[in-house]
Amino acid sequence: MSVEAFDTVDVIAAKRDGRALSKEQIDWVIDAYTRGAVAEEQMAALAMAIFINDMEPEEIAHWTQAMIDSGERMDFSSLSRPTSDKHSTGGVGDKITLPLAPLVAVFDVAVPQLSGRGLGHTGGTLDKLESIPGWQAGLSNQAIVDQLEDVGAVICAAGTGLAPADKKLYALRDITSTVDCIPLIASSIMSKKIAEGTSGLVLDVKVGSGAFMKDLTKARALAQTMVELGKAAGVKTSALLTDMSTPLGLTAGNALEVRESVEVLTGGGPA
Amino acid sequence: MSVEAFDTVDVIAAKRDGRALSKEQIDWVIDAYTRGAVAEEQMAALAMAIFINDMEPEEIAHWTQAMIDSGERMDFSSLSRPTSDKHSTGGVGDKITLPLAPLVAVFDVAVPQLSGRGLGHTGGTLDKLESIPGWQAGLSNQAIVDQLEDVGAVICAAGTGLAPADKKLYALRDITSTVDCIPLIASSIMSKKIAEGTSGLVLDVKVGSGAFMKDLTKARALAQTMVELGKAAGVKTSALLTDMSTPLGLTAGNALEVRESVEVLTGGGPA
Repeated sequence: MSVEAFDTVDVIAAKRDGRALSKEQIDWVIDAYTRGAVAEEQMAALAMAIFINDMEPEEIAHWTQAMIDSGERMDFSSLSRPTSDKHSTGGVGDKITLPLAPLVAVFDVAVPQLSGRGLGHTGGTLDKLESIPGWQAGLSNQAIVDQLEDVGAVICAAGTGLAPADKKLYALRDITSTVDCIPLIASSIMSKKIAEGTSGLVLDVKVGSGAFMKDLTKARALAQTMVELGKAAGVKTSALLTDMSTPLGLTAGNALEVRESVEVLTGGGPA
Repeated sequence: MSVEAFDTVDVIAAKRDGRALSKEQIDWVIDAYTRGAVAEEQMAALAMAIFINDMEPEEIAHWTQAMIDSGERMDFSSLSRPTSDKHSTGGVGDKITLPLAPLVAVFDVAVPQLSGRGLGHTGGTLDKLESIPGWQAGLSNQAIVDQLEDVGAVICAAGTGLAPADKKLYALRDITSTVDCIPLIASSIMSKKIAEGTSGLVLDVKVGSGAFMKDLTKARALAQTMVELGKAAGVKTSALLTDMSTPLGLTAGNALEVRESVEVLTGGGPA
């Protein structure tokens, strides 16, 4: 006997036919996907229907909240200073996290930069830092809080408990041609950032031939969608649109980019 | 090292973006899906993209041929008489195969009716016949040919060697809300009927509130698509659009429908 609140086939069919999903449908489908009651092939069909038929702002907000609710949330309210984080949508040579996190920490703002790996051919922040022999990406939640209080910044891997639905869905999107879609990009980024518990967030939305978003209109729509999601969740969020038509900096490659970032912090680096 | 001719993600993205798939892409994706090199979640995303963005007639023809080529074809050319088959898109009480196959056989036309099971709540022809104690659905290919020569008609299960890609894809469509789509319905039905080896085929396309196709325009498009696929494959194909607004016949239920069919053959049954 099924005791599920919805039939997966009906939820997929609604989005397939261009209808908005209800909050109840979204809450159910994300939870059921996380616990395996919605199969990968069913979520793949739903993701493609979302890609082609889009989502309304309210649906994206519900989808993001459901992904946050799929796991734990971090809480930095015990810290003696405010927290602020940044997220870039990425590109070749984009390594701004490395010099920016310590620079912001100087101003008594704690930077909880929970980063990722393997963003296609560009590498993620963790891939770059792991070019330093012995560097460790994994920290306990308590170690993250302690380092934020002590040093003022932490760059490490997000725990597996944050937005587990997003982790499953991102891997699925990667093999089903459903990555490059505003509702799915925005909800993926913002669910992780909101669950991470930062009180402020600056989004760097790349636009140009080397970015996910090739044209300014789509990039602006993505930025606005994410800013609205952040504000609705009580995170002070702003976004910049920045050029991603050429590689950023003078080098490309994980170890080279770390060296270039250290040069910047010691007063050198690109002019 | 991958030695695949195409990247699945590129093939999905082409249909996602509304482009026609090439013959080479279609041949590859059906073959790769059959042997497991395209994953179920990838075919689910592709099927949803086909559902929403449709296919051109040439794509449907290639898709159908690729599904036929995924398995074996039966050959009835050794028979002393022509073969002709029928296919109905189904509905409650629709059991015309049972009285029709013997009636056609009377006119020295052999009827190779390779049928299915479990068409949702209506039951398939095999489900109906299996209400007769001891009735056997499975026959070897040689037994099928022998019975067509001897009796002039056979109703049995299609061997697992016919259009295996369709068998996989049908099961996937069933759980991903991608059933009710003209290119996928037409290629599913016609790949099985062409692989079955009949030289003539009459299609009974149901239309109305109890049918897949609720409106006449969609039903006519499905019928025309299937007739063109049959003719292109050298099968003499025609189609009728028939009413499926009410249950057909006086009874519904597998055993009852078999009894009603026998009554028709003995000169009784519904007026």
